[in-house]
Amino acid sequence: MSLHSEILEQPVCLERLLTSQRKTVERIARAIQTQDIRFAFLAARGTSDNAGRYANYLWGAMNGLPLALATPSLFTYYQQPPRLKNALVVGISQSGQSPDIVSVLQEGKRQGNLTLAITNETDSPLTQSADFVLDIEAGQELAVAATKTYTTELMAIAMLSAALSGDAARWSELEQVAGWVSEALEQDGAVRQLAERYRYMQQCVVLGRGYNYATAFEWALKLKELTYVKAEPYSSADFQHGPVAMVERGFPVMAVLPTGKVFDSMMTLLKHLQTDLLAELVVISNSPEALSLAKSPVTIPAGVPEWLSPLVGIVPAQLFSYHLTIAKGYDADQPRTISKVTETR
Amino acid sequence: MSLHSEILEQPVCLERLLTSQRKTVERIARAIQTQDIRFAFLAARGTSDNAGRYANYLWGAMNGLPLALATPSLFTYYQQPPRLKNALVVGISQSGQSPDIVSVLQEGKRQGNLTLAITNETDSPLTQSADFVLDIEAGQELAVAATKTYTTELMAIAMLSAALSGDAARWSELEQVAGWVSEALEQDGAVRQLAERYRYMQQCVVLGRGYNYATAFEWALKLKELTYVKAEPYSSADFQHGPVAMVERGFPVMAVLPTGKVFDSMMTLLKHLQTDLLAELVVISNSPEALSLAKSPVTIPAGVPEWLSPLVGIVPAQLFSYHLTIAKGYDADQPRTISKVTETR
Repeated sequence: MSLHSEILEQPVCLERLLTSQRKTVERIARAIQTQDIRFAFLAARGTSDNAGRYANYLWGAMNGLPLALATPSLFTYYQQPPRLKNALVVGISQSGQSPDIVSVLQEGKRQGNLTLAITNETDSPLTQSADFVLDIEAGQELAVAATKTYTTELMAIAMLSAALSGDAARWSELEQVAGWVSEALEQDGAVRQLAERYRYMQQCVVLGRGYNYATAFEWALKLKELTYVKAEPYSSADFQHGPVAMVERGFPVMAVLPTGKVFDSMMTLLKHLQTDLLAELVVISNSPEALSLAKSPVTIPAGVPEWLSPLVGIVPAQLFSYHLTIAKGYDADQPRTISKVTETR
Repeated sequence: MSLHSEILEQPVCLERLLTSQRKTVERIARAIQTQDIRFAFLAARGTSDNAGRYANYLWGAMNGLPLALATPSLFTYYQQPPRLKNALVVGISQSGQSPDIVSVLQEGKRQGNLTLAITNETDSPLTQSADFVLDIEAGQELAVAATKTYTTELMAIAMLSAALSGDAARWSELEQVAGWVSEALEQDGAVRQLAERYRYMQQCVVLGRGYNYATAFEWALKLKELTYVKAEPYSSADFQHGPVAMVERGFPVMAVLPTGKVFDSMMTLLKHLQTDLLAELVVISNSPEALSLAKSPVTIPAGVPEWLSPLVGIVPAQLFSYHLTIAKGYDADQPRTISKVTETR
């Protein structure tokens, strides 16, 4: 099974990327610092778009860089792209193929911006318009659902953040990521067992906030692609502005909440969901208090700094999605309808 | 019933706002033009966040202004806000109360940025940090689910776009919006009849693209708040990058596609959904070709310029959500769990 082995391969991929691309990342950081960059303008789709959500929080918090997620149709169908003066234009794409993402980088280049491609295919249409290419070096990904290219995209984003901050302590933390991911993978058997219970689940919501807003979106996407469950992701704040009305007794809520700055706010919501609305919780956390709220608790390693928790927290979610796919009797490597490279304009 | 009467009240609200706030909007536009603004930085939640999605496309296409949607937790829990140099900082909130939205405007002010509040409450925490206040003048909204404050927020955003472009023809088009909305409201009886069929629907997706990406999100939010249907919104492009795998025979897909630059791409996807995947379509459009694909077609007026189509296209979606609420036997004015003002941090 390609999907399962690609999930298990992640520590090796993360280690390789960190070692082999550090110099390139530091060169990219220096180029950014010599320019008068006011914001990042980022184009991506699907799993790579979820990596972009991580960049939105990480680069904002750690590097003071606001990030605008591109609206690709303005570059393609409308042909009315915004002015990108003082923007770092970034495209993230595993394949480097999707024409809409390529056209955002092309326009960035045309307007004279610094352009960066983060991709697993260094010889692709995307890299042709890029001043800098950050190769995630994940090796060929055979399963349609992206896993190792997601965590390596996160790693690339985190490395760039560390390089921009010039803080050596952050590089030491990055060096521990592969080990934490290995530790998270030890939950494989436990996750397989608890996934069984969700064999007939048809819908759920997935909650995360701050850095793990990205994790909620990526977990939901894996569930949709692989298990065909209608899984809708939310920040815990957005969820309270309307959608919480959907929750009824027994409604399944997935949540990822490592300890950190948004932990207490997530806990308040989860307690309300469990106690008042009688929802059923699947919780990924390192906190015994959070895990105790869950019908299905999944433990992640302690001691992971919050800014790196999305690289570790997604791993049990990938395993959960994989094992649920098998429990439902579906093909984990080749889901119906979709293909590995999706070309949208 | 407050909700139904507030939906019907929209032409009057839109007319009033256009007449009474035009001078204020032109003053705001001049202030923006005297500053070196490179991008807009916008904070909003729920329905107002969907209005923000419209601004993202409209200001980008018509005014060349890139837009970053704020990540409020960076301003509250993390207390690591990005640098907002050269940004126009905008907060949109019906009540002007939510602390996270207020804190983005406060930080914008603290960093010396131009700040703008778009709100229905001119005396609120939000307006205290705003250099400019754009009062949407919708009158008190009693129903928990926002309708007239959504279309007036869109109108405020459209007026600012027209003022920034200095194009008189666009103001003439704005003057026709109230009439088009009145025309769309004439579908009330027809929509009531077709909503009946969806009495036992539990989940669906809602598709739109470009300017009507916002409409898809707002339609889905109304369905979730009012009917508790798990309705997930997508751009037609994002939908193809994974989630389309969920669609099986008879799966309900809502779509809004007025004629315009993204119409053909939406049509290609809808034909695939209807012909190959045997989905059931509910379509809002002025195009007979698009309507002919639908099990449940809803006609909107012809001749609406694409940039204003979200103000008209949402109206039958509001009616659909309202009538489905009644068909399901729920309370349209006071949905379970949620309240009018949601305060998140």
